[in-house]
Amino acid sequence: MRNLRPFPSIPRLCREVAPILDCKGTKGFCARLLDKHAKERYFNRTVERVPMKTTLVKSLFRETEKHLDKEVYLSGWVRKIRDQKNFGFIELNDGTFFKGVQVVFDNNLANFADVAALSISSSVLVTGKVVKSQGAGQSFEVMASKIEIVQKADLEYPLQNKRHSMEFLREIAHLRPRTNTFSAVFRVRSVLAYAIHKFFNEQNFVYVNTPIITGSDAEGAGEMFRVTTLKLDKPPRKEDGSIDASQDFFGKETNLTVSGQLNGETFCAAFRNIYTFGPTFRAENSNTSRHAAEFWMIEPEIAFADLTANMELAEDMIKYIIRYVMEQCPEEMEFFNQFVEKGLFDKLNNVLNNNFGRVTYTEAIDILLKCGKKFEYPVQWGIDMQSEHERYLAEEHFKKPVFVTDYPKDIKAFYMKLNEDGKTVRAMDLLAPGIGEIIGGSQREDNLEKLESRMKQVGLHPEEYSFYTDLRRYGTFPHAGYGLGFERMLMYVTGMGNIRDVIPFPRTPKNALF
Amino acid sequence: MRNLRPFPSIPRLCREVAPILDCKGTKGFCARLLDKHAKERYFNRTVERVPMKTTLVKSLFRETEKHLDKEVYLSGWVRKIRDQKNFGFIELNDGTFFKGVQVVFDNNLANFADVAALSISSSVLVTGKVVKSQGAGQSFEVMASKIEIVQKADLEYPLQNKRHSMEFLREIAHLRPRTNTFSAVFRVRSVLAYAIHKFFNEQNFVYVNTPIITGSDAEGAGEMFRVTTLKLDKPPRKEDGSIDASQDFFGKETNLTVSGQLNGETFCAAFRNIYTFGPTFRAENSNTSRHAAEFWMIEPEIAFADLTANMELAEDMIKYIIRYVMEQCPEEMEFFNQFVEKGLFDKLNNVLNNNFGRVTYTEAIDILLKCGKKFEYPVQWGIDMQSEHERYLAEEHFKKPVFVTDYPKDIKAFYMKLNEDGKTVRAMDLLAPGIGEIIGGSQREDNLEKLESRMKQVGLHPEEYSFYTDLRRYGTFPHAGYGLGFERMLMYVTGMGNIRDVIPFPRTPKNALF
Repeated sequence: MRNLRPFPSIPRLCREVAPILDCKGTKGFCARLLDKHAKERYFNRTVERVPMKTTLVKSLFRETEKHLDKEVYLSGWVRKIRDQKNFGFIELNDGTFFKGVQVVFDNNLANFADVAALSISSSVLVTGKVVKSQGAGQSFEVMASKIEIVQKADLEYPLQNKRHSMEFLREIAHLRPRTNTFSAVFRVRSVLAYAIHKFFNEQNFVYVNTPIITGSDAEGAGEMFRVTTLKLDKPPRKEDGSIDASQDFFGKETNLTVSGQLNGETFCAAFRNIYTFGPTFRAENSNTSRHAAEFWMIEPEIAFADLTANMELAEDMIKYIIRYVMEQCPEEMEFFNQFVEKGLFDKLNNVLNNNFGRVTYTEAIDILLKCGKKFEYPVQWGIDMQSEHERYLAEEHFKKPVFVTDYPKDIKAFYMKLNEDGKTVRAMDLLAPGIGEIIGGSQREDNLEKLESRMKQVGLHPEEYSFYTDLRRYGTFPHAGYGLGFERMLMYVTGMGNIRDVIPFPRTPKNALF
Repeated sequence: MRNLRPFPSIPRLCREVAPILDCKGTKGFCARLLDKHAKERYFNRTVERVPMKTTLVKSLFRETEKHLDKEVYLSGWVRKIRDQKNFGFIELNDGTFFKGVQVVFDNNLANFADVAALSISSSVLVTGKVVKSQGAGQSFEVMASKIEIVQKADLEYPLQNKRHSMEFLREIAHLRPRTNTFSAVFRVRSVLAYAIHKFFNEQNFVYVNTPIITGSDAEGAGEMFRVTTLKLDKPPRKEDGSIDASQDFFGKETNLTVSGQLNGETFCAAFRNIYTFGPTFRAENSNTSRHAAEFWMIEPEIAFADLTANMELAEDMIKYIIRYVMEQCPEEMEFFNQFVEKGLFDKLNNVLNNNFGRVTYTEAIDILLKCGKKFEYPVQWGIDMQSEHERYLAEEHFKKPVFVTDYPKDIKAFYMKLNEDGKTVRAMDLLAPGIGEIIGGSQREDNLEKLESRMKQVGLHPEEYSFYTDLRRYGTFPHAGYGLGFERMLMYVTGMGNIRDVIPFPRTPKNALF
């Protein structure tokens, strides 16, 4: 590990210092450098802290045998502390592992009284020996021979050891990753993101950063945030009194992207298989547990591929990333299964162990009509399915994730490929038990005439999208893709119920704190 | 590979179809399903295209032996075509590999005349046999037995086989990834991004998505883009006539982030080692080859670490990602070395094979004063070094990347840790030959009083940054971090001279095309 590295070994010194000091780097010469003065020259500045090699708590737990009966040097924060007259215990968390390590200290410490008086979240450096633990609940502990106090935390630290409401924790979003729940959420968030990159990388997909600031609206719908450098107080106006956007930074009106798909397709035409993974924005005034104004989205696009290949890709991806997180984060997932969503493992294993269902929209409507269940929103062919319908299909009928395909064209975006029936498009939504829609995608319209005619029908001007229609002029090709909301996937994997609790600093209506 | 998958094998059918059709999935039964009708039921819709297994061009080049004398099925685009009376050649690119494969066709093809008349960028499906090549320039070629034309590209396709200026190619940013240069640039961009995630993941760093929309300004400087849903035409005003930002989407004025560092530090306090990798924005009206309004940045932050650990991390990272790209993209890198920056390999190997230099700002100024070189901008202690100074240090004095540390506090940000001299801060800039500054970082001020006093000196109100100062209240800890401009790194690795040419759809003053 690289933090607070020890002063280099002599061979390393020889290798590294020699060119700096312009010497031959012989062993004898370098050995002489090991006094303080030489260290200063090596670092080119005052040496402030050259401690022993730091042992990470993760390594203590994962490779306990290696450390048993050896001295270790730890740095981290006091998560819990309790003391008796002559000894005490610190649960030390160093950020590298879900659990903290138990540090035992006694009145042999020169600063015993100060240590015993430490508050939650104080930062310390601990030297001690790893020993088998006597107590229940852990297999080892660290007997401290020295505890240096970096800082005794202010007693007003809000995360004292009691339960806090999720609402309260959102108000201290800068501190909440120090709690069990959020440490688990945000470590899994990181691992999930890596799983996604790894999955696509293994299949040679090219990662594309589509623009965040955009002059167009990918869906032809969706509320957008305006991006501007004009002075709101006194914006430049044209003669007719309207805003003169030509004087804005980009010389025209620009917004935050709602989807990278259209741009992504252009790269699909060059690299065959591509994906985006970046922030997207919706200026919708929805105060629900599933909507945020700023969220991350993954949008793969595959060439010479149809809707079936698209569904296979989506299914493979979902299974791959769930499996990866379960393997990489066993402690965190166990915590979620026990305290956040009872039955989480059953839910996820059900996804892993089944082939996803596939049903057309028309068949799905039939199922809903015939199931005998009373829905709040009436069912008929042509409706945009409500959450209750989606959940019935996934949870009660299929009892596993199911792709619904071939939706009516009127409830889907203009770029989806029209079926031969002239009524439906090659759309697919993946509905999952417990959450509903988690992926939306389609095969794209690759026929220039049909695409342009559809654009006109929905009120778009094809000439404004010439970069997009060009793809149908210069070697058009069957292609398909989908969008996965990263946070929604994270909610699904962790069982967290509110999108505000899976985003480090969530942005929602009236809230852009931190 | 997953595109245009073949119809499933019988064992797979048994496994997958059985639950759908509610049969036992015996082999005999499934075999009977292999007629068209069964396929339709399997896919739940009309089967449109169930071709043979697609072979990717990358596999042809990387595993040639495996394919020799076998039939393959290819799909892709015509990059070049030339024909004689009875036969012809197509250079077929399918997006998976830098090079295209040579496809030979002759008048045994039923549609020989149509194929011979194909235009650049036409999309085709090729069935053929891989054979050793007679011609120079390639070791194998594909003898086509069948070529299906998906679309003959419009003859106005702008990328005919001649040299195009970079400026022209920027105007067709949706098509330029189909050229050699940009196919190389954007594949390397993808691989470089993956290398960064891989490097940090291997060291257990937690990836953090810091917010894009922000209410604060990380640097206390830098022009920002405003994000708003207010109607610019008629914004709501308060009684005194000023804009009523409380009616904006977030209830206050918000901007696009210029850095995720301050937010990142809060996660560093929980996870020890973290990094961000996301888009950042500058509304600076700089029309240079090195500035874009939207670019991606990597910002690691490490706990219980000082400036030395920070430099070691930066050096390890730079070497790791360069090495990874050179290993993963040999064809692209060879192209850059030959056609984009002669001597690129020498430059990169020089980085890989040397320990980076380390020098304090004060020493660096001394070097510049004593070197006898005439600079346009005069040198004296306290100046913000100009590009000419940085390049002299890296290119002529050290002849390798060099960290300059401990800059005067007045030219650096408020959050950098003050040295004991009271004049300098623990900043570090990494200067590299051929590009100048590529990384900027520092150890952070972890002392609450010093931090607040410095904030006041530069005109910031500590109470508005309480989430940041809280980190110094509740278990403060030595920590450090840096920022790497992703595009600048990409320019360095590829030799590309203009940032507009390493961003898929660049955003610069007066330009937000596509």
